[in-house]
Amino acid sequence: MTLIDADWIAADWQEGALRLWAMQDGRVLDKAVRQGVPGSDAADQASTWKPGGPVVLAAGLPDAPRVSVPVTPGGAPAHLGGSLFALPALVQDRPAGVIVGAAAPLAGFLAASPDWDGVIVLPGGGVTHWVQISAGEAVSFLSAATGMLAGGLTLAEGAPDGAAFEQAVADTLSKPEMLAVRLAGLRAEIDALPVAPALGALIGAELAAARAWWLGQQVAVVGTGAMAGAYANALSAQGAPVTLADGEGMTLAGLYAAYRALKIPG
Amino acid sequence: MTLIDADWIAADWQEGALRLWAMQDGRVLDKAVRQGVPGSDAADQASTWKPGGPVVLAAGLPDAPRVSVPVTPGGAPAHLGGSLFALPALVQDRPAGVIVGAAAPLAGFLAASPDWDGVIVLPGGGVTHWVQISAGEAVSFLSAATGMLAGGLTLAEGAPDGAAFEQAVADTLSKPEMLAVRLAGLRAEIDALPVAPALGALIGAELAAARAWWLGQQVAVVGTGAMAGAYANALSAQGAPVTLADGEGMTLAGLYAAYRALKIPG
Repeated sequence: MTLIDADWIAADWQEGALRLWAMQDGRVLDKAVRQGVPGSDAADQASTWKPGGPVVLAAGLPDAPRVSVPVTPGGAPAHLGGSLFALPALVQDRPAGVIVGAAAPLAGFLAASPDWDGVIVLPGGGVTHWVQISAGEAVSFLSAATGMLAGGLTLAEGAPDGAAFEQAVADTLSKPEMLAVRLAGLRAEIDALPVAPALGALIGAELAAARAWWLGQQVAVVGTGAMAGAYANALSAQGAPVTLADGEGMTLAGLYAAYRALKIPG
Repeated sequence: MTLIDADWIAADWQEGALRLWAMQDGRVLDKAVRQGVPGSDAADQASTWKPGGPVVLAAGLPDAPRVSVPVTPGGAPAHLGGSLFALPALVQDRPAGVIVGAAAPLAGFLAASPDWDGVIVLPGGGVTHWVQISAGEAVSFLSAATGMLAGGLTLAEGAPDGAAFEQAVADTLSKPEMLAVRLAGLRAEIDALPVAPALGALIGAELAAARAWWLGQQVAVVGTGAMAGAYANALSAQGAPVTLADGEGMTLAGLYAAYRALKIPG
């Protein structure tokens, strides 16, 4: 058995799974995924990885530190004890909100694009965050539980794009009160809802609430998978200039920036 | 083992469970619940019930008959084969919709209140139907997948009533586009959402879509459990005159009316 000699370990907890990366400076040597709750010794999870070096965690543990917006994402992570460090969660008083795991891809995107001004959309399994960035600072954010609502739908196979998707976005963007009625109409004949109009309806209703966050704004969607693509498609169909950046890559970039800030303080 | 000598068997399939009642004319002798899919011999499920007499099913099997609105609910059930009969589903072309299991409580309520004019609200596990009744006829209906959206939420213990519930209803009734944002705000500090503002937000958004169906109308909510009570509370808080009728009782009344129409044609 070859031990992997990592400088440090990047860790991300999302939707009940702890993802771990054995890192040499900014390079991924190995990956592991463990189902369960974080908080034990994350470094033990990948037993062929040589222990040593810090573990930098993206998602906040219950007692992890928090910083209030406006704030510049990034900087040194908080020390939780032993070799474990975590990026702080971003909190906002009005409206009340908290960005936990998504603080890492946010920091990663800004580390890669330090002069970027606009709105960063961070789709998550439960909640999507819209973060207003100005002069490198996260000024304020809006959160919407569209992923939680989508979790109640039984969806057929398919991709959230195409004409049916764009029409559904436009429909609930102009009449957001019709969301549940549109979804019921999709189920009139079959039990599983077609993906394109169902996710289109959900995202259209969210775009109605978030209109000031994308209309006339430069927008970056930072995420992985069908939902991130769906937000990018929906915004693009509405004429917003959209950049789509990979969520896992940006999470690693955010954790790497934190690791470097840990090594080289200031 | 005493065999129960039923005249007929009432059956209702909802959310994966088949509920059976051994009936003597309009009286319940015994009950049984079976998890699973209907379509086999429903009369076999309750093995201490003496076979014989018709089985009248509330929910439509895939090949069960359908009738288009406008239509007078009730009348003789359709013969599916053997001793099995089913109430027909109600269908509507524009907007496309179908009422399957809820056709039974609808018929039951109208059998009990033949001169009733107004709107009957039928909350279901996935979809809620709003049915406009005039001169004993179901004229048209609106369906909303509020229950499906609620299914994606992790709710804390609690009841959907009180000031927080009514405020949440009023908020999304006036700004239905804020539904997902309000739900995200409830989750800012804890993982499980408080029931009252969460269900209030969902129902308020539905009330915005269904405004013409309750404003200035006589409304009856026919259903069982927390969701039925929540609709009644929400409508009442908005000043609508609301009657709340028990869903199981009305389902049995609808099946009984169908059984009688079977025995005494015309």
